[in-house]
Amino acid sequence: MMRKVCVAGVGMTPFGKFRERSFQDLGREAVWNAIKDANIEPKRIQVAYAGHARTGQTLGWECGVGQAILSEVGINKIPVTSVGNFCSSGSVAVREAWMAVASGFYDVAIAIGVEKLSVRKGKGQPLTSDGVELEGPLGFTPPAFFAMVAQSHMEKYGTTREQLASIAVKNRSNSVHNPRSQYREAISIEQVINAKPVADPFGIYDCCPTGDGASAAIFCNEEIASQLGKKKVYMVGSSLVSGSYDTRDMTSFDSNLRAVEEVYKMAGLGPADVDVIELHDCFTSAELVHTEDLGFCPKGEGGSFIAEGNTQINGKVAINPSGGLLSKGHPLGATGVAQVAEVVWQLRGEAGQRQVADAKVGMTHTAGGFKDGDTASMTINLFTT
Amino acid sequence: MMRKVCVAGVGMTPFGKFRERSFQDLGREAVWNAIKDANIEPKRIQVAYAGHARTGQTLGWECGVGQAILSEVGINKIPVTSVGNFCSSGSVAVREAWMAVASGFYDVAIAIGVEKLSVRKGKGQPLTSDGVELEGPLGFTPPAFFAMVAQSHMEKYGTTREQLASIAVKNRSNSVHNPRSQYREAISIEQVINAKPVADPFGIYDCCPTGDGASAAIFCNEEIASQLGKKKVYMVGSSLVSGSYDTRDMTSFDSNLRAVEEVYKMAGLGPADVDVIELHDCFTSAELVHTEDLGFCPKGEGGSFIAEGNTQINGKVAINPSGGLLSKGHPLGATGVAQVAEVVWQLRGEAGQRQVADAKVGMTHTAGGFKDGDTASMTINLFTT
Repeated sequence: MMRKVCVAGVGMTPFGKFRERSFQDLGREAVWNAIKDANIEPKRIQVAYAGHARTGQTLGWECGVGQAILSEVGINKIPVTSVGNFCSSGSVAVREAWMAVASGFYDVAIAIGVEKLSVRKGKGQPLTSDGVELEGPLGFTPPAFFAMVAQSHMEKYGTTREQLASIAVKNRSNSVHNPRSQYREAISIEQVINAKPVADPFGIYDCCPTGDGASAAIFCNEEIASQLGKKKVYMVGSSLVSGSYDTRDMTSFDSNLRAVEEVYKMAGLGPADVDVIELHDCFTSAELVHTEDLGFCPKGEGGSFIAEGNTQINGKVAINPSGGLLSKGHPLGATGVAQVAEVVWQLRGEAGQRQVADAKVGMTHTAGGFKDGDTASMTINLFTT
Repeated sequence: MMRKVCVAGVGMTPFGKFRERSFQDLGREAVWNAIKDANIEPKRIQVAYAGHARTGQTLGWECGVGQAILSEVGINKIPVTSVGNFCSSGSVAVREAWMAVASGFYDVAIAIGVEKLSVRKGKGQPLTSDGVELEGPLGFTPPAFFAMVAQSHMEKYGTTREQLASIAVKNRSNSVHNPRSQYREAISIEQVINAKPVADPFGIYDCCPTGDGASAAIFCNEEIASQLGKKKVYMVGSSLVSGSYDTRDMTSFDSNLRAVEEVYKMAGLGPADVDVIELHDCFTSAELVHTEDLGFCPKGEGGSFIAEGNTQINGKVAINPSGGLLSKGHPLGATGVAQVAEVVWQLRGEAGQRQVADAKVGMTHTAGGFKDGDTASMTINLFTT
């Protein structure tokens, strides 16, 4: 029923604050990079999905974002649909493009992710989730929520502040080698702990910066991938689940467990098979919880597991070799597709000084929304050589 | 490769101005009506797509709309994705749900459409398309654009003001029998011509009202449809194309021609087979052009074809038996899914006093965006008994 799907090419802009560049311009750069990477004729792209979470509220473009970007590179007339799912918006664009090819409806599909947050209104106020009618004004913002996650984990499992800080240190040490990352300076445990406070125990280095950026990934069937001649990377599974963060136990997310079980089952793989993962480290405590929930170490042991180096580029599983959201920044819709770009570079052996040796299985993981209840989501996409 | 897809059930709210009802409440009513219509257990729904075009800008909900609605009826944890494509947003939700079942990825999928326009900012200003950076402020708004379409058609083909007005008269005469329509009073040719002017030659009756509303359609594989026991309605094709309205000849839309050719080919049908169509009559001239472009009469003859009664409920092809956008109103994201509801009722013989006799093939047609260029789109979905 399902056909094999390959990644033909990937591209992204650097992430950062680009107030003077339009989203069309950012998108054009990412799409063109993906087309050049695939070495495919633009007219062979048959269908497009554009992921964006806030362009309506920031730019007045709630629809037509993909069409406007694709017309910049001369692609028009094809079906183009906007898709959204909070911080997973790029990842659901990837998922839809994958389904479009896996199903046989189309042979070549493109997923685009884009966001411009530097222009958003309400600057200085924390960026919170759509529809948080009560929680937002009452202070239940993402930094506050994930700070509570950190405190719960410290209390329940004895995780230390230093272990938490080691996550930010690791990701920054990876970003030193990533020219597309917004922040590339290495930092120390002491710098993380003594940084400007945000929400106890978090300082600024525990929180990902926002930013602007765009990313693109082209998917095709296996036959076309053979013609293109690049090292083949297969997308072998995708899971998307909704809700919920249960605030009665903030040290694990039920949606992680359901999503990862589904995607492992789909591909016949397990956590021991994963060589590299780009994972949703919007805050240090998020990476801690996700690392455990996805099965890379036993529950509660994430602090020492990470601090001892097991998730470094040459560790048991390389987590966020790109530098992650904590270093790259988090232009919502662009994030999930950019994660795919990094994983594809890793699986092809093209990641330069941040290359994970002999990487064969890669995963991307994004958490969308953060409200307690049903609007949150988790998206996992899985790739193999 | 493709499995047969059936419509299990449909539902919608009345369309109108419901300032005191939340979108969650409107959505809950539509989804629950569809569930009751299908007589399916809510927990059997496996995947959802929510179409909305302006909820970010009007309500601050750019994502999570589907999750918030589904949680109202106890459906959670399943994959839910927001999709958008201007006025076609509901229609692309239908298309994605159809693809999800046709591909075999899922057995039961729901498409939801919702919009609340009564709360939008900038009231009194014409509602225009996203991203119309120059055209909007310069006056190139939807009423102005479609008034130019009317004038072009009158000049090129001799279409008369009375023929144009007969479209509004026909749709209102249908809406008399539709309890879910926003405006249900019959009107005369004279009333249309002498109405408060909007953009020459349009008066208010040539223009669809905006509004609030929600709609839902549940799709399933044929086996499940057999279990549910209702008269089977199959969704046999879907096309979505992008761009463009060529302003050098405004009497035909290239996107119509490409979209309808694709969907007819997909289903092995032609215009002579279509018994009933819900078509995007945002303005009288839009219905005129779409009627011709979709092949129901030769190009240029739409005026007399319609005025002579060929598109009335008992004519050669019943166009907008629901009363269309001109009567029902046009809550953007809700429109495309509501069109499906009407077509399904017609194909099942459940449309009461507006029933099209012996309807076997039905079509829905929505035009998304209106800008000259590549961001516009056309979506056609096709159904048979």
